Amino acid sequence: MNDHDIDFERDGRLGFPEFVFGESKSTEQIGAILGAFRARGESGLVTRIDAAKAEALAGAADDLRHDPASRTLLLGEERPRRDHGTVAIVAAGTSDVPVVAECAAVLRFLGLETRLHVDKGVAGVHRLMGSLADIRESDVVICVAGFEGALPSVLSGLVRRPVIGVPTSVGYGVAEGGTAALHAMLASCANGLVVVNIDNGFGAAIAAARILDPERMRR
Amino acid sequence: MNDHDIDFERDGRLGFPEFVFGESKSTEQIGAILGAFRARGESGLVTRIDAAKAEALAGAADDLRHDPASRTLLLGEERPRRDHGTVAIVAAGTSDVPVVAECAAVLRFLGLETRLHVDKGVAGVHRLMGSLADIRESDVVICVAGFEGALPSVLSGLVRRPVIGVPTSVGYGVAEGGTAALHAMLASCANGLVVVNIDNGFGAAIAAARILDPERMRR
Amino acid sequence: MNDHDIDFERDGRLGFPEFVFGESKSTEQIGAILGAFRARGESGLVTRIDAAKAEALAGAADDLRHDPASRTLLLGEERPRRDHGTVAIVAAGTSDVPVVAECAAVLRFLGLETRLHVDKGVAGVHRLMGSLADIRESDVVICVAGFEGALPSVLSGLVRRPVIGVPTSVGYGVAEGGTAALHAMLASCANGLVVVNIDNGFGAAIAAARILDPERMRR
Amino acid sequence: MNDHDIDFERDGRLGFPEFVFGESKSTEQIGAILGAFRARGESGLVTRIDAAKAEALAGAADDLRHDPASRTLLLGEERPRRDHGTVAIVAAGTSDVPVVAECAAVLRFLGLETRLHVDKGVAGVHRLMGSLADIRESDVVICVAGFEGALPSVLSGLVRRPVIGVPTSVGYGVAEGGTAALHAMLASCANGLVVVNIDNGFGAAIAAARILDPERMRR
Amino acid sequence: MNDHDIDFERDGRLGFPEFVFGESKSTEQIGAILGAFRARGESGLVTRIDAAKAEALAGAADDLRHDPASRTLLLGEERPRRDHGTVAIVAAGTSDVPVVAECAAVLRFLGLETRLHVDKGVAGVHRLMGSLADIRESDVVICVAGFEGALPSVLSGLVRRPVIGVPTSVGYGVAEGGTAALHAMLASCANGLVVVNIDNGFGAAIAAARILDPERMRR
Amino acid sequence: MNDHDIDFERDGRLGFPEFVFGESKSTEQIGAILGAFRARGESGLVTRIDAAKAEALAGAADDLRHDPASRTLLLGEERPRRDHGTVAIVAAGTSDVPVVAECAAVLRFLGLETRLHVDKGVAGVHRLMGSLADIRESDVVICVAGFEGALPSVLSGLVRRPVIGVPTSVGYGVAEGGTAALHAMLASCANGLVVVNIDNGFGAAIAAARILDPERMRR
Amino acid sequence: MNDHDIDFERDGRLGFPEFVFGESKSTEQIGAILGAFRARGESGLVTRIDAAKAEALAGAADDLRHDPASRTLLLGEERPRRDHGTVAIVAAGTSDVPVVAECAAVLRFLGLETRLHVDKGVAGVHRLMGSLADIRESDVVICVAGFEGALPSVLSGLVRRPVIGVPTSVGYGVAEGGTAALHAMLASCANGLVVVNIDNGFGAAIAAARILDPERMRR
Amino acid sequence: MNDHDIDFERDGRLGFPEFVFGESKSTEQIGAILGAFRARGESGLVTRIDAAKAEALAGAADDLRHDPASRTLLLGEERPRRDHGTVAIVAAGTSDVPVVAECAAVLRFLGLETRLHVDKGVAGVHRLMGSLADIRESDVVICVAGFEGALPSVLSGLVRRPVIGVPTSVGYGVAEGGTAALHAMLASCANGLVVVNIDNGFGAAIAAARILDPERMRR
Repeated sequence: MNDHDIDFERDGRLGFPEFVFGESKSTEQIGAILGAFRARGESGLVTRIDAAKAEALAGAADDLRHDPASRTLLLGEERPRRDHGTVAIVAAGTSDVPVVAECAAVLRFLGLETRLHVDKGVAGVHRLMGSLADIRESDVVICVAGFEGALPSVLSGLVRRPVIGVPTSVGYGVAEGGTAALHAMLASCANGLVVVNIDNGFGAAIAAARILDPERMRR
Repeated sequence: MNDHDIDFERDGRLGFPEFVFGESKSTEQIGAILGAFRARGESGLVTRIDAAKAEALAGAADDLRHDPASRTLLLGEERPRRDHGTVAIVAAGTSDVPVVAECAAVLRFLGLETRLHVDKGVAGVHRLMGSLADIRESDVVICVAGFEGALPSVLSGLVRRPVIGVPTSVGYGVAEGGTAALHAMLASCANGLVVVNIDNGFGAAIAAARILDPERMRR
Repeated sequence: MNDHDIDFERDGRLGFPEFVFGESKSTEQIGAILGAFRARGESGLVTRIDAAKAEALAGAADDLRHDPASRTLLLGEERPRRDHGTVAIVAAGTSDVPVVAECAAVLRFLGLETRLHVDKGVAGVHRLMGSLADIRESDVVICVAGFEGALPSVLSGLVRRPVIGVPTSVGYGVAEGGTAALHAMLASCANGLVVVNIDNGFGAAIAAARILDPERMRR
Repeated sequence: MNDHDIDFERDGRLGFPEFVFGESKSTEQIGAILGAFRARGESGLVTRIDAAKAEALAGAADDLRHDPASRTLLLGEERPRRDHGTVAIVAAGTSDVPVVAECAAVLRFLGLETRLHVDKGVAGVHRLMGSLADIRESDVVICVAGFEGALPSVLSGLVRRPVIGVPTSVGYGVAEGGTAALHAMLASCANGLVVVNIDNGFGAAIAAARILDPERMRR
Repeated sequence: MNDHDIDFERDGRLGFPEFVFGESKSTEQIGAILGAFRARGESGLVTRIDAAKAEALAGAADDLRHDPASRTLLLGEERPRRDHGTVAIVAAGTSDVPVVAECAAVLRFLGLETRLHVDKGVAGVHRLMGSLADIRESDVVICVAGFEGALPSVLSGLVRRPVIGVPTSVGYGVAEGGTAALHAMLASCANGLVVVNIDNGFGAAIAAARILDPERMRR
Repeated sequence: MNDHDIDFERDGRLGFPEFVFGESKSTEQIGAILGAFRARGESGLVTRIDAAKAEALAGAADDLRHDPASRTLLLGEERPRRDHGTVAIVAAGTSDVPVVAECAAVLRFLGLETRLHVDKGVAGVHRLMGSLADIRESDVVICVAGFEGALPSVLSGLVRRPVIGVPTSVGYGVAEGGTAALHAMLASCANGLVVVNIDNGFGAAIAAARILDPERMRR
Repeated sequence: MNDHDIDFERDGRLGFPEFVFGESKSTEQIGAILGAFRARGESGLVTRIDAAKAEALAGAADDLRHDPASRTLLLGEERPRRDHGTVAIVAAGTSDVPVVAECAAVLRFLGLETRLHVDKGVAGVHRLMGSLADIRESDVVICVAGFEGALPSVLSGLVRRPVIGVPTSVGYGVAEGGTAALHAMLASCANGLVVVNIDNGFGAAIAAARILDPERMRR
Repeated sequence: MNDHDIDFERDGRLGFPEFVFGESKSTEQIGAILGAFRARGESGLVTRIDAAKAEALAGAADDLRHDPASRTLLLGEERPRRDHGTVAIVAAGTSDVPVVAECAAVLRFLGLETRLHVDKGVAGVHRLMGSLADIRESDVVICVAGFEGALPSVLSGLVRRPVIGVPTSVGYGVAEGGTAALHAMLASCANGLVVVNIDNGFGAAIAAARILDPERMRR
């Protein structure tokens, strides 16, 4: 049960490599998978890895870098920065920063430029208005919010770019776990807002990368 | 089982009379209850009454008026207009109009002035901005929204008046039944937003009346 | 309460006009809103309108066309076909056709070309494999499925294009209402799949239009 | 990602300042935000802050006071006591005291007087009856209850003041998390009861402050 | 599949006969089952039978009596009135009457005396107080309520008799279907309240009959 | 959108043909699909088809037979009876008969012998005991129950055969829709009970056919 | 907030005293409440108290006894054993023992005799059959079960005594938290089964005491 | 309460012995139960036992072996390998390995041969295709998956063997706890897929053993 069937063909097929979901794997399992990447000379990124596992692995290998803010562990190098395609990440509050950080780390790994706008929640909507000009300069918008998750609805009504909503598990009571924010984004009266799973900054980043895929952009 | 124990002391105790919830009562039950009101010379209002029951009753009695838009049946006269206290009712969309109408009918019955602002949903937030000056003139704000229910969150961040959120059952998929809107309002990052049950325009009206209670205002 | 505050600025701001959600509006409300469109010389599309309302309106006006399959009512003309940008719509089963039809109607209204692939559910995955070459030719993929909603997960692992999952309410038992399919798509192990509300073919179409926005494509 | 966009205009706009939600922020984030308050000479209140974070911050700064009972951290001084406006806080049981304490701390910070009545649950309703005269002397009533959440329903039928229900997460089995109490308050047959999120003593306090806003009371 | 395996031994074993659940059976199935009762000379009671089925059957047989209020169909005679054991049925509102009626019909069938108290909801708790003396005279109390379901909690704190709570599906929004009332009763802070399924007046009646079982009372 | 991609290879691949799910397809769609079967000379079975659609189709074609009890429509002939492999279908109550009938119709179509035992619910467990000897003679047991769904748990503890639980949507209150029965079967303390979707008599039949697949049995 | 309003009249009113719910109270709060009991010379029982709190209190006072198995803390003496009234407690498995123990501790405190039957789950129903004769000797039956919660349904069909079902939170997956068992008991096809909250052994004991109330039994 | 009523007749009745569910039992309870097995000379297997309990018991007895990967504790010897009947266990990802290990441990204990295929998730469906030939050689297929749980649906469409789906609690957001995977498997459009509880590798193993029961295979 210790052999892994890693999808090394993914990069050729989809334009991005297999990432390693760290949350429910043991340190040993992650180490073995990274060993397989290393053996092929591939870079790799582990997401949702807790600090103890990451430090144990990074402490024993020079080619691993742990970023606690984004809960990622990087093997090797990020891809070179692409010369086009910018992604704005707009977040409702400081509490959403871990999801923002994961999202930014994945985009950086794929060579995409990001612009961050945090603390733009709808309780003081003038803050969002002040950031709009900059957000409109980006190619894709990722909008991160917990609690009532209203920010992506307001933002989608103000910008013509594709907007990807990321609900977060920030909140308590009916907001606990993030379902309230998720449902608000799915039910949005703002047109064309698309959504990923709760706290899934990773998925939003990959979706942005699909939209900005150089192969498609060339067509 | 046909005797009713109506709370005729409610007006003296709370400042508003007992209302009749029409939805799950038979035409005969509603008729008997209204008869008890009539026998005491009291006005009364039936809420959530469907058209068939209301027409059957109104067709047989001169002192009953049916308002299909608000699904109410009025016995006797509304109370005289109070000389102070205005309630703004702000709604996200045309589909919320039945709840707005119920709310306004109850406020009118109690003698309170209302101002209506419909179609102010966050998908085009400039519409709300255009109504703000008028909304700020009111004493209490009732904010009605279905789908993702974001409007009360945005509005609560813009006005200092008490804001009462009314989620509606307008929407489909995860919005069906109104739970998404309800949870969004309860989880709101906007401070001090209070909420009533889904589609409960009646309850919001009574809450506004409690806030604008002349006895308390005099203190 | 009968005045409507229609967002006629939306087209300039977002690249697509306001659509009319027909499900929870009365025939009179829809008629009044379409009158406002007509008065400005704008085309318009009503979605989720039932046959009775649509026939009543279409029977009384020459510039309205009812399409029962997609539950839409068109005022005026669709926009001219754009010269680039193709959207593949892939559906798991025949029962998903109403959602496919709504999605295609909205895309056609916006001038986008569509390619349809129905009956590609995972119970016989060879059928999907046979369509892959054609799907890969498109610029955006919309994938529609009810029941267990597995198709978008499989498809996202096979094509590098942006994939938008649309869960449908087709199914019974735990699949009733579409939540099982929605959750499967949100929880997908396939990377970068984005999702819209249950049965929301409309939203998927707008999301595709945002991705294929000529203004952005020109940059 | 470490800059914060604090809504310092909130006090002028809404009559109360931005509060800091401590639960999902790191000690460093809270410290940085309080530093921004301090730099402007503003008082501030952090809510839902756990003891470890609060002690770490309070131990390093003279102008911070930690109140473990209410899980708040105060920067600077509470506002001077207003000369009118009293809020009764009525709670069902001793287990609800943390929510009561948060609510009272926020009201005190805003200069409002509070009267507390704890252990008035409906299992011995005579206890509530004994407190009624005092409760009726207040201007707004906040009613806190977990388990079946029946107290606000009974109380709303007995007092004419605005009543704000606060469900708590006290209980187990079907009461776990507080949804049973929340639903009971939203579904209440008592008229005009308004509700905030589970355990949201903070929100109830702000709602009371909105009702007792001196600007409105002067009108 | 048309043979039925009726539990005719139940009366000897448990002290009450098998009842026929009419809701999900066809008219033919119910007719066949009643025929088996008739063939053995047994009385029987069908519960939750809709009017069309009941009238079809009662119209064709002299020994069947349909009671629309309780949705029951009686074959033969009720059992003779027992000389001891009284059951109080206390209901919150007029809308709960169908459940009260079912409960009373089953108790009457079993020969038990009932006392009804309707419209005693907690929004005007003085009405309950006025009925307390009579309720305390009974041996078992069945308490029926929809919406927030608070009445059994208050009542259980006031009477020492066994109290059986029956939540009803009366209400809307979060109360729709009766889950809010059910959870309130299960979570009650009042000690020793027991509960049956939503709208299950039948089950409450049988539970009362078990408590008042003459065989046990004799011991 | 009117072409169908029917999986005619399924019989060779899996040992049973594609069945037609009738519930969410239009009469025209079903007719077209059956036409494709007919054109290839294949028999076919439509499940969950309502009476109106089935009668419309059967009335227009000699090779179609409608069985209302099982809600199936048969094209052509059932497969010849296999000479081994018996399936017992045990049901808790008369209300479960439609699901039993669907299950039996599918098994018959596949040539498998069935034995039916209805009305064996646990409220009178002696009835089950009386059928045990016959049930133990079968090769696979399908156990159908609604309400609390306890029957498969009891039965699985008494027979060594594979037991497939089928929860039904029979019941009300917490049992409405069948989730209570489904969860009871999944959570069963009886070992090795497997479960299919609510009301999915069809799926249980196919599972039994997989277990009794002649190809595997020969091995 | 440290004064407690203890319901010392409860014993006279209801036949049993107020119990102290220990779970969500601090050690100091529990100590203060017990002090009030002690000051009046009353015995008392704390339920759901964790070991750390209980040991801290019991270590500092001679009149307190901690029983870890039932998570209770006893102040003073249990009431003298009544000379009639026996309660059988029947449990499905060893894992249910903590709830059984709580139930038995409360019954003992009230002077009632108990008979315990553990490990009688339906996966081996012969074990229940072997205990039936003894169970039938009792006056009230309390039946405790987790997982699928089928035992009370089977047992209610076999004994004519009042049966009180207690679902437990024992189980995982769909059984986690006890909702599956709760719903199974509420939905039971066995007649007259009444239910208390998940893990509420305390409530079941009080319900039994109400049934066996000497005042009522004398009537 | 310390006597246990172990079902030692189960092996004769059902073909497999009683297993010990370790999760919610204390070390002392498990030790006592194993003592009863030992006294009869029976082998036994404890499942879902955490490391601390298992090590405490295994450290004190020579006949106990703890396998941390499968969370099992074995008393005595596994049964001899049967000469026919192979079970394939196919898992979507490395994170599912604990459930795979439990399943394999139970099958081994019963003498059945297993073949493992891990990391076959649908995000790279070619990996599954590569394993198909080997999977088709087995007699029963157990398919384990978390997140969106799509693998059993795809696999059931490709193999004619009985397929038992085991949803796992691997995932986050809407996948947390495993309900999304469970519902996907129950709702599968693939025919005849049967399902067990979330993380119930044990139950799937027993179901496979029932299918491969030598007594039935001989018939």
